[in-house]
Amino acid sequence: MTIKVAFLGPEGTYTHQAVIQQFGNDVTILPQKAISDCFKCIDSKQVDYAVVPFENSTNGQVVFTYDLLRDWFINTTEPEFKVVAEQFVSIHHNFLTYAKDIGSIKTIYSHPQVWTQVSKFLSEKVKADVVKIDVGSTSKAAEIVKSEGSDGTSAAISSKMSADLYELPIMYESIEDNVSNTTRFLVLGYNKPLQHGTNEEEEEEEEDIVTSVMFTLNNSENPGALCDVLVRFKSNGVNLISINSRPSHVKPWQYVFFVEMIGDLQDGVNTSLEQIKPNCLELVVLGSFKRSWRYY
Amino acid sequence: MTIKVAFLGPEGTYTHQAVIQQFGNDVTILPQKAISDCFKCIDSKQVDYAVVPFENSTNGQVVFTYDLLRDWFINTTEPEFKVVAEQFVSIHHNFLTYAKDIGSIKTIYSHPQVWTQVSKFLSEKVKADVVKIDVGSTSKAAEIVKSEGSDGTSAAISSKMSADLYELPIMYESIEDNVSNTTRFLVLGYNKPLQHGTNEEEEEEEEDIVTSVMFTLNNSENPGALCDVLVRFKSNGVNLISINSRPSHVKPWQYVFFVEMIGDLQDGVNTSLEQIKPNCLELVVLGSFKRSWRYY
Repeated sequence: MTIKVAFLGPEGTYTHQAVIQQFGNDVTILPQKAISDCFKCIDSKQVDYAVVPFENSTNGQVVFTYDLLRDWFINTTEPEFKVVAEQFVSIHHNFLTYAKDIGSIKTIYSHPQVWTQVSKFLSEKVKADVVKIDVGSTSKAAEIVKSEGSDGTSAAISSKMSADLYELPIMYESIEDNVSNTTRFLVLGYNKPLQHGTNEEEEEEEEDIVTSVMFTLNNSENPGALCDVLVRFKSNGVNLISINSRPSHVKPWQYVFFVEMIGDLQDGVNTSLEQIKPNCLELVVLGSFKRSWRYY
Repeated sequence: MTIKVAFLGPEGTYTHQAVIQQFGNDVTILPQKAISDCFKCIDSKQVDYAVVPFENSTNGQVVFTYDLLRDWFINTTEPEFKVVAEQFVSIHHNFLTYAKDIGSIKTIYSHPQVWTQVSKFLSEKVKADVVKIDVGSTSKAAEIVKSEGSDGTSAAISSKMSADLYELPIMYESIEDNVSNTTRFLVLGYNKPLQHGTNEEEEEEEEDIVTSVMFTLNNSENPGALCDVLVRFKSNGVNLISINSRPSHVKPWQYVFFVEMIGDLQDGVNTSLEQIKPNCLELVVLGSFKRSWRYY
């Protein structure tokens, strides 16, 4: 039976690319309209895995995903699915248009997060009065430009995959300000996925395991509270690799913390989590997964 | 001479409301098209103050403002302006339209951050096929609906101030999911502003001072590094009130940390900052300012 994978669609997006990196092409894909639909698909077991964007090296958090993790795992019955893998996709934006001359472009479509990633290109090549329209995905942007036909005055900033999918000419390639622009995706599921396309050399090395947790503090009025928690990890020799916060939605200016660390749910990690429990109103392990070789 | 204030315009936005709360109506206002233009206005001394949104109790960080603080204060000659005050504005969204019946609405305009703040209203009252278009401000949304005329099929989700400014009927008032939805604004300037509209009772009480700093760690590969810094504040009895991070733009997955604490630049705060300097590549004090009485 083929593996079923839901992801933030449509086809041709960078999330689709993450799906291919993780699972290859031999899977049944179910593109979803929203990240929340990906969570619903995996929770209802309509699919085996769901792939969602989490973080971009230029823009930071994908806040929708953080908030969905918060809303699914806190203050509700904890779902059975977990974060089971991660993928990193290099983001290369391209300027897709039927127009022969960039001067005739009147409208550009793209995803809202993209504009800040191509600001140099926009200020150097695009007239100030060109209208920039936000759409739900870079692939949708390409679809709109396709639908406007070959005598249009519009362009999409989108992926190479979309240019292929909609057969749109690429006027400028790799227009991103930062050539090392990367998006990190999370894979949600019930079981660890089989590795696809793993770097062979790396197989021989010992792999890092990342454990991701989320907590709210029971004494958040005392801001030493966060420090008290972080100190526990340090004293157990646990290497924290990221810390992020989102509004808790319980009370204004109170936060949910997302912390990632190196290590499996044993030894130092486990000891630390046991020790911080009394400091937390809620403490949820989102998952433990192999650090993707593409991280390095 | 009247005080000149730049802010993220146009008139009628919540940022304009923050300007009025801070300075009253007897100032010369210079509405700007982008938060970055507000920074340019204050840096070039075209204005005495600039007011920019910083944080929303539902959506979290206004990432553009965080990134502008990072880009202005790190890796450049440090500007002379500082954060000199803060303002809190209660956000009440309203549904503005000429339509008589919500069923005839085909398009809704608003600021991208608004949709998640009115999700209950949208799912209960608005048909799924209604097109939602992102525009630069809630006030701009009202302006577009005004321009489409009174037989239009469009609506704006916007402030009461915009409804007044564009003389648009309010079909539904206060449609936000969370009635305590609040946005926090920062005031940038060279001098402390005079207090306007201060709560008299509070004048007699001792006021909290907030100090806001930003730093990058010189040993960020070692994630105990952040903990080492936070411990210094704790050991000096300094009350940290928030911690946030943004990508550093120097290297992927490295971060700039924004920390706010209670206290002026003396005693514990000053001692802590001196102590953490060796841990930091960059350490910038963004400002010390009175906690607004509207916070409480």
